[in-house]
Amino acid sequence: MSIRIGILGYGNLGRGVESAIKQSEDMELVAVFTRRDPSSLKINTESAKVLSTSELDHMENDIDVLVICGGSATDLPEMTPKYAAKYNVIDSFDTHAKIPEHFKNVDDAAKNAGKIGIISCGWDPGMFSLNRLYAMSILPEGKDYTFWGKGVSQGHSDAVRRIDGVKDCRQYTIPVEASVEKVRSGSNPELTTRDKHVRECFVVAEDGADKAAIENAIKTMPNYFADYDTTVHFITEEEMARDHSGLPHGGSVIYTGKTGDNNKNTHVIEYKLTLDSNPEFTGSVLIAYSRAAYRMNKEGMKGAKTVFDIAPAYLSPLSGDEIRAHYL
Amino acid sequence: MSIRIGILGYGNLGRGVESAIKQSEDMELVAVFTRRDPSSLKINTESAKVLSTSELDHMENDIDVLVICGGSATDLPEMTPKYAAKYNVIDSFDTHAKIPEHFKNVDDAAKNAGKIGIISCGWDPGMFSLNRLYAMSILPEGKDYTFWGKGVSQGHSDAVRRIDGVKDCRQYTIPVEASVEKVRSGSNPELTTRDKHVRECFVVAEDGADKAAIENAIKTMPNYFADYDTTVHFITEEEMARDHSGLPHGGSVIYTGKTGDNNKNTHVIEYKLTLDSNPEFTGSVLIAYSRAAYRMNKEGMKGAKTVFDIAPAYLSPLSGDEIRAHYL
Repeated sequence: MSIRIGILGYGNLGRGVESAIKQSEDMELVAVFTRRDPSSLKINTESAKVLSTSELDHMENDIDVLVICGGSATDLPEMTPKYAAKYNVIDSFDTHAKIPEHFKNVDDAAKNAGKIGIISCGWDPGMFSLNRLYAMSILPEGKDYTFWGKGVSQGHSDAVRRIDGVKDCRQYTIPVEASVEKVRSGSNPELTTRDKHVRECFVVAEDGADKAAIENAIKTMPNYFADYDTTVHFITEEEMARDHSGLPHGGSVIYTGKTGDNNKNTHVIEYKLTLDSNPEFTGSVLIAYSRAAYRMNKEGMKGAKTVFDIAPAYLSPLSGDEIRAHYL
Repeated sequence: MSIRIGILGYGNLGRGVESAIKQSEDMELVAVFTRRDPSSLKINTESAKVLSTSELDHMENDIDVLVICGGSATDLPEMTPKYAAKYNVIDSFDTHAKIPEHFKNVDDAAKNAGKIGIISCGWDPGMFSLNRLYAMSILPEGKDYTFWGKGVSQGHSDAVRRIDGVKDCRQYTIPVEASVEKVRSGSNPELTTRDKHVRECFVVAEDGADKAAIENAIKTMPNYFADYDTTVHFITEEEMARDHSGLPHGGSVIYTGKTGDNNKNTHVIEYKLTLDSNPEFTGSVLIAYSRAAYRMNKEGMKGAKTVFDIAPAYLSPLSGDEIRAHYL
């Protein structure tokens, strides 16, 4: 029998999750749940329904895992604990400072309901976190570096769009290759914010807008751009549609550690992602961990979990014998 | 209270494990066990004993985890099940075809004794296996490539040493960078054995030996060298001692997977190790997983395990709250 998945929220991430389910023979999409008018939504899975979120009040027997694709600012802190009281759930909550509180809320709800609630799953937090933990556990005398990009930052793109005279923007975060190389060499450099990443903005300005003022507003924007070397390019709407429609991303976690007499030996561990589609990759991670949520719950486990708490074997549809034979 | 470790076997790997214990504040080395005369062995930990393996018959109350540092050909198939009947154990068994049988033997012994037996732990099998499994679980439509090196292969070095007229040899396995780049590009190339790695031998010949004959014997040796492009350099004993005393190794697991409509999006996941000391890194992995063995057994788990079966949180000495706060 298939693992029956529900998707709550159908933006880029929801569509990425839907795409991942199609690649998973042991899973089926039951329904997409939306706060919009369900009749207004066209999804890519013929066999699945589009339903109003209110239907989630009574579908406990139809859904094995609910993948919650909402925003971390306001959606997930409310939704994930709420639905963990009825369903195995998973989210990609990424507001770092609030993870302890979110974990506690989901843990209470899920334990009470006898369900699993996986939080903060994706690639960062997610696969990058795993690689930081594995590396520091193996080499306790070491240091980790995370570089992001080259990739589109939705938050930074939105910040530029709010500037007067800006019609559209795509912002790329780009690691400074010379700094990445320094880290790879094992030299443990001290790097400032400016040393690690540059930012590149492609902006469509409104007719007659003051481009110099826009460029200045971007480059001096606190938190988002002021601490970085930023490049601004003005382009046409046609160029935006033609050259910047994708959502690539990626980055690397590099850990350097020392061992041996007088710490004479250096080891470098690098985990690197190069992703054509951030939401499709994140959706694929969520679906692999949804399988884990289902299987762990079947074994009687409950409560909030993160990628740290989940044995890798739970992610694979193959048996223990098969993974030992083919992947060990 | 510290986790009390015993090391069985004191070659390069045993010393690497000893070195890793010194970096772990929650662990102490109780004793090194040897089949040699214990009085002949000088170890690097003053507080630890050197004992004969026969003492393991009665030290169940003194050792929490026994790290078995023996060879995969004959030592581990016998030792690991034997000691799993009394101790939590861990080994780095790497004879791939015999893993199912070894797993079964250790599982039977460990379950019967209520102990944990972790097998095939290190970096390959070990961390590389984990990365293959995570990647294929996230992106089911993909392909994995493993490259080894640049690093010293002990097996190949030994094979050359057995040739007539050879006094010493160090063999380096080196990935073909052009092939690594092809894989990184996401083009999913078909690669032969010769495409993936080259082999480089540094040989000290005996006085008056026929160097042309040695070089020919190396390059035509079946399994070890015949399928590779191999370079042979003759050097002096002084050069060997000066330039080739280390045991560096490493390599990378590169996985390329597709997602989206018509699989239009490509993702590349790369995990890369660059290790100054293969035995010290492997020893560090064994010690992190020894911590897991101890903690899982404390929670009542038993039987054979591999890296696939172990939730990452068990590897860290930090609490769940701490790792969520600092590494997620």
